[in-house]
Parts: sequence; structure tokens; C-alpha cells
Amino acid sequence: MKIIIIGATGTIGKHVANALAEGNEIIKVGSKSGDFQVDITDPASIKSLFEKVGPFDALISTSGDGHFGPFNKLTDTEFRVGVNSKLMGQVNLVLIGQHYINPKGSFTLTSGSMADDPIVLGSAVSAVNGAINSFAKAAAIELENGVRINAVAPTVVEESPSYFPFFKGQIPVSMHRVAQAYVKSVLGAQTGEVYWVL
Amino acid sequence: MKIIIIGATGTIGKHVANALAEGNEIIKVGSKSGDFQVDITDPASIKSLFEKVGPFDALISTSGDGHFGPFNKLTDTEFRVGVNSKLMGQVNLVLIGQHYINPKGSFTLTSGSMADDPIVLGSAVSAVNGAINSFAKAAAIELENGVRINAVAPTVVEESPSYFPFFKGQIPVSMHRVAQAYVKSVLGAQTGEVYWVL
Repeated sequence: MKIIIIGATGTIGKHVANALAEGNEIIKVGSKSGDFQVDITDPASIKSLFEKVGPFDALISTSGDGHFGPFNKLTDTEFRVGVNSKLMGQVNLVLIGQHYINPKGSFTLTSGSMADDPIVLGSAVSAVNGAINSFAKAAAIELENGVRINAVAPTVVEESPSYFPFFKGQIPVSMHRVAQAYVKSVLGAQTGEVYWVL
Repeated sequence: MKIIIIGATGTIGKHVANALAEGNEIIKVGSKSGDFQVDITDPASIKSLFEKVGPFDALISTSGDGHFGPFNKLTDTEFRVGVNSKLMGQVNLVLIGQHYINPKGSFTLTSGSMADDPIVLGSAVSAVNGAINSFAKAAAIELENGVRINAVAPTVVEESPSYFPFFKGQIPVSMHRVAQAYVKSVLGAQTGEVYWVL
């Protein structure tokens, strides 16, 4: 199976790449590193990526920026960091990628637990995560040729200790559990699901 | 209670205005009609509205555009109609409005059942609805001075028969039930809730 991983050198992406390495062709994509580069905030850059990579069987996105900051100072511009990157970046990977993916292929996007379980400073990211979850549910009923889509919604992960102070009381999840949610999406047969890793 | 209704002359807004008319001062706001006008896609227009209206006790938004269209032709530009209007428009009503609302005031936004219950042609709207629901949950834990926020998520309503063909099998909800969800949000005491009207 030819699997594109967007964000393949990131905290989650590298574990997902390792988990799927055996028996698959992994195309590692980053903003600056990897086999190919893409700016997911730019639809032209996404289209160029698919033209270069060619037909594929699965796309996993573990990428997307977002702004954390206090609600009483939050601005439109700050809020749109996540809207333009984590939301529209991942949406455009699917909108454009649907024209390059092989029949019975799959898209797996990344949202996050904050969609339903918010933290202080996180409202812009919560909104984006909720949008991704609903997008996956909706896109699933329209994608053609048996193409599937799911979202993975992890809470804070063990390898991101810098985030721990913002998730007080939250037990971080292991990278193994997170990576396996992506494996389940790609190698399973479900569609329109949100895989919570909590 | 001084209540601003954005979208007050729309299908839902006019029923909400009627339901809350007795004993309250209702400020009706529309894009082109009402006591005041606002372009919710423009933060400067929103700020100007609040400067004109002055301090208030509740803001209800029943406004926001979105694009319906087939997934296999959907573009970034079409998807962003809802992102810029129904999502960022309502988000900015809260981000800016929090600096004008009275203590113990409330914001009530509108999402929709499609966040969890998608229809064909609706993926862009589903995503926006999911974002609004998660935003309300997240904003609720940071709003200060006892200010509350909820979202109302209605399915197709009885007064919108042009939408019925897109919601096959869905029993439309009465305008009374929809309006009362907004009343519950404004006159109740809950925060961070999504009121599904299904």
C-alpha cells in the first residue's frame, strides 16, 4: 500500500510512519523535511504535491498549526491560524486528494480531544478539532469509489511534556496507542468515524 | 433584559425575537434590515455595532451563510463561505462582544444538527456546525464575570420547505421548539451546552 503521511517527521507522524512501515511504501511529507514538502495552507502547494507523488492508497495527516491564547484577548487573526492550517489545510488535503486517491483508499485526519474536552487557552483549537470531526463524518457519506475517511482525536501525548501544564489531571496517552488509531483507520474498513485516544 | 438578536428578521430569528419580546428590550440586527445592520464577516463592522448598541445582557446569533454543494467538486473557496460567515462571524461576535456584554450576560450561537448527522452536499456546513459546538464548550470555561455561552443545533425547520428534499426522512421541527431552545439558553443558567433541536 502506498501511504502518504503529512507531518511524517512530527511527534505523532514519526510513530505512525514506523507503525505502518512494514510492507507498505511510506511517502514522508513535511513542511520542510521528508521525501516531499508541502504548505498545507496553500491549495496550489497541495495540488503540486499530489502531481509529484501520483496515485496513492492512503493519506494520513498529522499536521496543522493552531493558536493557544487567553480568551479575553483572542483576536480574529489568532483564531484563523488554526482555521487556515489545521482545518482548511486538512480539508484541502481531502478535497484535492480525492481526485488522486486510488479506489478503496482512505484519508485519516487529526483532530484532538479538545473538541469535546476543552482546556483554558484552547478555544481556537477546540473549534478546529470539532470542525475536523464533523467534516470526517460528513465527507464519508459522499466520497466515491469506496474511499473512506476518519479522524483521530488524541489527548495530550507522552512525548509532548511541554503541553502537560495545560492539561492538568489529564493522563497523557502513549505514542503506541495514538499510532495504532491511525493504523486502525488505514488498515480497517470503517468510515466516518472519530477515533478518540483518551 | 437588553437582548441583541443578529439575524432577527430571518426564519429562526423572527420567532426567537417574538418569544423573548415580552419584558425585554430586543435589538434587532440584520445584514440589511432591523434596528441596526452588521456584516458579521467583518470584525470592524461587528465592533461598530457594539459601539452603537452599547452594553447588553444577551446576544443571540441566528445568522451565517454556508455553501451546499457536491463533495467531488467542492473547492477551498466554496468551503470558506461558511468558515468566514457562519463560523468566524459568530466567533467574532463573541470575541469582540465579550468586551461589551454585561456581567452574567449570555451568548447563544447557532450551529445545526448536521454537525453529527450529515446530509449529502453538506460537508462544508457540517464542519462549521461542529466548530461552533466545540467553540461554545471551550469558550464557556474562559468567559469572565459570569458570562455564559451555548449553541443551538436545530435540524431542518418547518418554515424552510425548500430544504426538505435535502433532509429526506427527517421530520422538520416546529419553530416553537427551536425558539424555545434560545429562550432556554438566555433565561436559563447553563453554559457550554449544545441544545439539539431534533
